[in-house]
Amino acid sequence: MQKYKIVISYDGTDYFGWQRQPRQKTIQGILESSLEKITKEPTTVIGAGRTDAGVHALGQTAHFQTKLLIKNIDLLKAMNSLLPHDIRILSLRKAPPEFHARKSARSKIYRYRILNSSQISPFLVRYVYSWASPLEFSSMRKAASLFIREDDFTPFSSNRLLHPVRKVSRASLIRRGDEMLFTIEANGFLRYMVRVIVGTILEIGKGKFPPDQVERIFQEGQRSLAGPTAPAKGLSLIRVFY
Amino acid sequence: MQKYKIVISYDGTDYFGWQRQPRQKTIQGILESSLEKITKEPTTVIGAGRTDAGVHALGQTAHFQTKLLIKNIDLLKAMNSLLPHDIRILSLRKAPPEFHARKSARSKIYRYRILNSSQISPFLVRYVYSWASPLEFSSMRKAASLFIREDDFTPFSSNRLLHPVRKVSRASLIRRGDEMLFTIEANGFLRYMVRVIVGTILEIGKGKFPPDQVERIFQEGQRSLAGPTAPAKGLSLIRVFY
Repeated sequence: MQKYKIVISYDGTDYFGWQRQPRQKTIQGILESSLEKITKEPTTVIGAGRTDAGVHALGQTAHFQTKLLIKNIDLLKAMNSLLPHDIRILSLRKAPPEFHARKSARSKIYRYRILNSSQISPFLVRYVYSWASPLEFSSMRKAASLFIREDDFTPFSSNRLLHPVRKVSRASLIRRGDEMLFTIEANGFLRYMVRVIVGTILEIGKGKFPPDQVERIFQEGQRSLAGPTAPAKGLSLIRVFY
Repeated sequence: MQKYKIVISYDGTDYFGWQRQPRQKTIQGILESSLEKITKEPTTVIGAGRTDAGVHALGQTAHFQTKLLIKNIDLLKAMNSLLPHDIRILSLRKAPPEFHARKSARSKIYRYRILNSSQISPFLVRYVYSWASPLEFSSMRKAASLFIREDDFTPFSSNRLLHPVRKVSRASLIRRGDEMLFTIEANGFLRYMVRVIVGTILEIGKGKFPPDQVERIFQEGQRSLAGPTAPAKGLSLIRVFY
């Protein structure tokens, strides 16, 4: 068996998320079925992050194994020729047996795009959360930086885990024209974590939360104190580091 | 009756072109039916250019008339709230009675995007024509500049008109990373004109036509000497000048 590491980009708009599910179009499901057409054997594709329905990826990473003997470039071309146009394999290489796309990952970067404008380009609408009213950028940026910490992120998630501590090494909000870009890097993410963090930062920007709300949420540990889960379409998995 | 001028942006992927047609989703049809919901009267929307199925617009321009008394900003908001997300009104203003979106236009700019790469991002696939093999850029650029002329463009069109002379004031090909951008400005365009011109430039880039083919096509006037009609999805109507 040869193990392969692939980097994948996809427009998540028309998919029910990463994870294979019966009777739903998912990224993992489509990747596995196109690989099975090539390898003629059942193949499991393990991704670094299980992106939710509607979330995009510029650099999702995954691994799989096959007995098929084939050149890297030919396997890459065969996969891309079978995949729909909104899923593309960007690179493919052989990986050592111990490589695991999720467990070997040291960190992942996600980006969330907020469009602060009453005018939404039809070419952006699938990739941004848009908000027409003013947003208080400086308090949002300050709030964003408070997430750089090693802490229990349960209040920013939809479920409780036994080991809910994650280390966020980077969390920044920048402005680019009408857009605000939130970038976060961590050694792992809880379910909906980025979207609840963004939802919380947005509440601060809209003036619905005081700027010290972030500290209070970490201290009291209540999901109900955090903001709503921001829409999936603004979120992209940018890169996975090993 | 008050006349209005609107600037519209749309992702043409899911539409059967600009022009209203029975039982087809078209940009004009959707604009008219959303206006009729607001004005409660039959309303005709006249566009500057009748873009083909799959062609996009960053700045299509159109006019319509209504008896309804309403502030510009309210009409703009009402239209955008009724329109699907892949069609957006960018601006709306009152226009004098003699204004006509098509007849008053002095010139229009179209852009065609060619992606010269074997790797196609899922976020670009709806907006570019992609070609993986090498393209001879310098001869393509030279060929592009030969279209700056006032001439009979019939061999670069799908049909014969009584008055087929058009004046192209700008035609350029530039490179930007993996992309080539063809920009053309003219006082008018024949049917499929930009796409046949691009198809011809591509044949030169692929080495299938000699560099002097453009002159020969203009001299002999035969559509059969020009290249195939390039796919609609790479084309966008950028701006209309009055």
